[in-house]
Amino acid sequence: MAGSTLSERTPGIPSQNAPFVVSDLSEWKTVGHGVQRQILAHGPDLMVVKVTFEPNAIGAIHDHPHRQVTYVAEGTFEATVGEERRTLRAGDSFFVAGDVPHGVVALEKGTLIDCFTPSRTDFLG
Amino acid sequence: MAGSTLSERTPGIPSQNAPFVVSDLSEWKTVGHGVQRQILAHGPDLMVVKVTFEPNAIGAIHDHPHRQVTYVAEGTFEATVGEERRTLRAGDSFFVAGDVPHGVVALEKGTLIDCFTPSRTDFLG
Repeated sequence: MAGSTLSERTPGIPSQNAPFVVSDLSEWKTVGHGVQRQILAHGPDLMVVKVTFEPNAIGAIHDHPHRQVTYVAEGTFEATVGEERRTLRAGDSFFVAGDVPHGVVALEKGTLIDCFTPSRTDFLG
Repeated sequence: MAGSTLSERTPGIPSQNAPFVVSDLSEWKTVGHGVQRQILAHGPDLMVVKVTFEPNAIGAIHDHPHRQVTYVAEGTFEATVGEERRTLRAGDSFFVAGDVPHGVVALEKGTLIDCFTPSRTDFLG
């Protein structure tokens, strides 16, 4: 099916249709130097976001009341959560309780899947 | 760093240490024919789970009150959510509101990242 068009994929449904979010039709937003974000599926209670990092790109230490799990999909990151720091590779993950400062440094090109509850409505619109 | 041991990765910390979950140290559980599950990082409000599927393996239609987002990390799946059905590929995702029936069929070998709020405490222990 490589090279198939979206309309071939799903006849008659070439566009997004909830509850499905098709990556090829979703926007990317630059959110930092060498950092891009794509909002994936979400509802009021839950949002998942994909974030890509160029080598040495930084997700600066920050905090928010939303609880977060981050999954390393690709690459190697130095992750900081509260007072803890660890090098994580593809398949590794971490949990961030509400209001706990956290951030990452991409030690090579990589991709994170960030899951939030409640939804990061501040990312929308 | 390929081939490095865990102790080389993080000197003095060869085991899991919250809030980090290292994939190499996490158990896999067979949860269906050709379906395996690994629990990733989680807290009371949020849990992320990795599920691998052999070709043609089925995640049978089921429902639960937890809200869910599923991200296709690898492979091609036919996903059903309520009355909607769509073929999804790596990078695609879907949202499941509470108590909505949903399931997948793996059209080829694949991996899903399932995010739940609240946490699937029924998966633990």
